[in-house]
Amino acid sequence: MHTSEAHEAISQQLINAERLALSRWCHGDPSGFLELSAGDVVYLDPFIPTRLDGLPALRDYYESLRGKVYTSRFELHNPFVQVLENAAVLTYHFVAYGDDGDTFPWNCTEVFRLTHGEWKIVHTHWSFTATAHGNGAAH
Amino acid sequence: MHTSEAHEAISQQLINAERLALSRWCHGDPSGFLELSAGDVVYLDPFIPTRLDGLPALRDYYESLRGKVYTSRFELHNPFVQVLENAAVLTYHFVAYGDDGDTFPWNCTEVFRLTHGEWKIVHTHWSFTATAHGNGAAH
Repeated sequence: MHTSEAHEAISQQLINAERLALSRWCHGDPSGFLELSAGDVVYLDPFIPTRLDGLPALRDYYESLRGKVYTSRFELHNPFVQVLENAAVLTYHFVAYGDDGDTFPWNCTEVFRLTHGEWKIVHTHWSFTATAHGNGAAH
Repeated sequence: MHTSEAHEAISQQLINAERLALSRWCHGDPSGFLELSAGDVVYLDPFIPTRLDGLPALRDYYESLRGKVYTSRFELHNPFVQVLENAAVLTYHFVAYGDDGDTFPWNCTEVFRLTHGEWKIVHTHWSFTATAHGNGAAH
C-alpha cells in the first residue's frame, strides 16, 4: 500500500506527464504519447473499428495523424488516479476548444505500469462524453 | 512476473467473470457487475456526462436501469488481458444483437485489482466503436 503522500506524488507525476503529451498532441505532435507508451500498449478510440495492439500499431496510426491535429486550447478536467501497487489508472475528461469556441469533450482512461522506475502507458481508451456528438440522445 | 500458464489462467478467469456479468446485464440484471466491482470503482460510459466515482454512485445508476436492458444475444469479441502484477486490464468489443438483427458494437475496458485473492473491477470504460452511431463519420 502507498501512503497518501506517495499516492499524491504518483498522481501528480502521471497527470503532469499526460498534460505534457496532450500539449504536444494539440500541436500536431503525437511523439509525446508514443514516448510515454509501453511496447505492449493496447489502444481504443472512437475512430478505429478495432483495438490496436502494441506500440508499432499505435505508431503507424499516430504517424498518420502527425501534423493534422491542432487545438488552440485544452483542459484536462477532473483527473483522478487510482494506484494499484505497480500500476495506476488515470481517468479524466479532456476538453478541446475549437477556434470558434466549440468544445469537444472526451472521456479518457490511461493505465500506467511501473517498470524499472518508469511509468509507461499500457492501455489507452478515448471516447466521446455524453454531451458530445449527441450520444446522450440515444437513450 | 507471471508464467504464461498463470497469465492464461487469470485471463480465462476474468473473461469468464465478465461474460457471466454480461449475461445477467443482457437480461436486465445489473447485480453481476455490481458484485464484481470494488468499493472504489470508477466508471465511464457514453450516456453520462461525468465519471462516476465509487460503488454507491454506480449502484444508483445501475439500479435506475434494472429491468430495462434486454438483448437476445451478445458476443464478447477479441478479449485481451494484460496482467500487471496484482492488477489486470481486460479489453474487448461487446456486440449486442437487437431483435431485428441490428448490431451495436462497443469498446470495453475493465481494470481489475487482486485483493485478498479476489479480482474486482476498479475501473470500467464503455464507449461506442467506430462503426456504431456514425462516430467514424466525424473524421
